Amino acid sequence: MLIVAITGMPGAGKSTAAKALETRGFKRIVMGDVIREETRRRGLEPDEKNTAEVMLELREMYGPGAVAEVCLRSLKTTKEEVLVVDGIRSPAEVEVFARVGKVKLIAVHASRERRFKLLHERGRSDAPVNRGSFDERDKRELSIGVGNAVALADESLSNEHATPEELGRRVVELVESWVAAAG
Amino acid sequence: MLIVAITGMPGAGKSTAAKALETRGFKRIVMGDVIREETRRRGLEPDEKNTAEVMLELREMYGPGAVAEVCLRSLKTTKEEVLVVDGIRSPAEVEVFARVGKVKLIAVHASRERRFKLLHERGRSDAPVNRGSFDERDKRELSIGVGNAVALADESLSNEHATPEELGRRVVELVESWVAAAG
Repeated sequence: MLIVAITGMPGAGKSTAAKALETRGFKRIVMGDVIREETRRRGLEPDEKNTAEVMLELREMYGPGAVAEVCLRSLKTTKEEVLVVDGIRSPAEVEVFARVGKVKLIAVHASRERRFKLLHERGRSDAPVNRGSFDERDKRELSIGVGNAVALADESLSNEHATPEELGRRVVELVESWVAAAG
Repeated sequence: MLIVAITGMPGAGKSTAAKALETRGFKRIVMGDVIREETRRRGLEPDEKNTAEVMLELREMYGPGAVAEVCLRSLKTTKEEVLVVDGIRSPAEVEVFARVGKVKLIAVHASRERRFKLLHERGRSDAPVNRGSFDERDKRELSIGVGNAVALADESLSNEHATPEELGRRVVELVESWVAAAG
């Protein structure tokens, strides 16, 4: 199985890239969903503060690959040849997925200004409400290793000036080249 | 002053990008030179082991921005409008340069396989001699924060498939757009 893992800072465009791959026909799993579901399971609103607490607690209890381990359990019976994992946050998570397939890691990149703007446009329940909470979220993500994942990626796609369609087209082209090479 | 700072993992192509900007007419300073000079000043060969030790010691003694502080002192009298800083290794170093100018940070990116190949082709005195020392050097660079610098960059340039000329052309275009915007 080829596992296309997607990493990047908050708001960089990970899900835009992953959804384009989903539209192309690849199965997509969203690592943030695991955290949001666990937050709801505890009777909490999946807002920024609560999801952050749950994420850090899962990692503290079960290690830096905790969220990936939960994803992996739900994948035990999958027969996909290509799987898209949306939202890798550290090299430790990459290593968990590498136990069950060949992982190719894509970093989606955008500047802080651009990411802040994109997060606001998106307006998901866990979007930061102001610059302070944006900076805090960046710091939290870096503290768990997302910068290392970005630096160690197999390819980096800049989303600084791309439309969602352009980013989608580039990521599909890239993954198709990997699928062809693996084929 | 506009300070164009260039970061990236070992072998990604930082100097190729920075040299293209130098050829275009911008003054370039090389952060690694500070470390290699200090290593020689101590009567040591500037090989991989010695430069690593000196770099870590400088940071331990003078803080995470130590190497940038040394560069900055040598710049006190510069009258350049644009300065290219080759080899940023952490957000702390970016902050040092931000005291004297507007910093725009570029990450040059390539996969591990590609970087290992490029380092071997380069064959500088501090190039890793095998896969083990390559991995060790990656780990060391990540431990001082290069992943965070890469993730927080204003733009990311992929050097995965580019020729040196193509990478050079793209970085010059990018910096010229910033210079034009700074007016």
